[in-house]
Amino acid sequence: MPNKSSIMRLSRYKNALLKLKSLNFVRVFSDNLADAAGVTAAQVRKDFSMFGVTGNRRGGYQVDELIENMNKILGKDKVRDFIVVGIGHIGTALLNYRAFKKSGIRIVAGFDIDVAKQNPKADVPVLPLEKLPEFVKKNNIEYAIITVPDFATQQVFELMLTAGIKGFLNFAPVRLRCPEGRVVNNINIETELENIIYFVNVTGTSKEQ
Amino acid sequence: MPNKSSIMRLSRYKNALLKLKSLNFVRVFSDNLADAAGVTAAQVRKDFSMFGVTGNRRGGYQVDELIENMNKILGKDKVRDFIVVGIGHIGTALLNYRAFKKSGIRIVAGFDIDVAKQNPKADVPVLPLEKLPEFVKKNNIEYAIITVPDFATQQVFELMLTAGIKGFLNFAPVRLRCPEGRVVNNINIETELENIIYFVNVTGTSKEQ
Repeated sequence: MPNKSSIMRLSRYKNALLKLKSLNFVRVFSDNLADAAGVTAAQVRKDFSMFGVTGNRRGGYQVDELIENMNKILGKDKVRDFIVVGIGHIGTALLNYRAFKKSGIRIVAGFDIDVAKQNPKADVPVLPLEKLPEFVKKNNIEYAIITVPDFATQQVFELMLTAGIKGFLNFAPVRLRCPEGRVVNNINIETELENIIYFVNVTGTSKEQ
Repeated sequence: MPNKSSIMRLSRYKNALLKLKSLNFVRVFSDNLADAAGVTAAQVRKDFSMFGVTGNRRGGYQVDELIENMNKILGKDKVRDFIVVGIGHIGTALLNYRAFKKSGIRIVAGFDIDVAKQNPKADVPVLPLEKLPEFVKKNNIEYAIITVPDFATQQVFELMLTAGIKGFLNFAPVRLRCPEGRVVNNINIETELENIIYFVNVTGTSKEQ
């Protein structure tokens, strides 16, 4: 069964392939993809075999076929709608993040309890939080990005679970536990920064790392 | 030797401890921390033992002592200065992200090649990219967050390596390889969203997951 890391690698292969395609590459070898994704060529072949991606080790893979294959596996053969809950700095940035479009991810609405942040007429409307359940049901929304302050996280999460959201990317500094049948990825930017500080200090004092 | 995961857990313990402290907790048990960080109590004790954090399994740990210990291990006993390079939506959000302050992380400047984004008089000044080497040397900056578009990433990264930056958090959708003696963490938001889409679809069609 694929795990989170193997799917992350698949996304990276696909991003590398899109770049190679834009450079007019027609064929690609596992070594090329390995370099682009920062893994070994053996890992690329192992991943491809796990996902049933076929190709010729000597002749290479067809770039177009690979991209199509990856998009199917990743569920990117159709556009997926996301909502953003919590329209602070990070939430606003994600609402306006144009790079999502080319990868079949569409941000369709934002939600906030603060009236000052609401804007139902915007290109990507920002609606009152209490409209969330209705909006989710009416538009069959399955995915959400959480960017609310820590104290609000659990309550907002439960509201969204009840509304039927299945997949969550959580930027709030509260680690959300994943209920059965749902998917939750947590990104804590502060923790990432602390991690970097730690390892810079370790490598600064020891060359063995 | 601690790895990235164990340091990430340590950050999570510390964040949980800060919340418990704000609720007036004086003592805490490995089970409490396990719940807050989403790991087992055995894992908490194993991590503490690896980092030389002492405590009494029966009597629990002193919250204040633990926080002080974690801050020392994580290098959070002093304020660390970061710069943000690339002042688009995500870069702007990070420049203004107030939550960093309480964890000893200070964003001291932003850099961009676009004159329209530069603002040397702001609270957190945004300077022309060509001023980066001078600024980094003058202010002993060791840490940077990269939020530039994909095509600019490698060039900006090399400029910062030459300037002497040691630790990087990279949000650009290009995976940066880490040179000897430096630290690079990559966060690709798009890849995270793809990951969620994939697993929602898998759990939707199979209950074995």
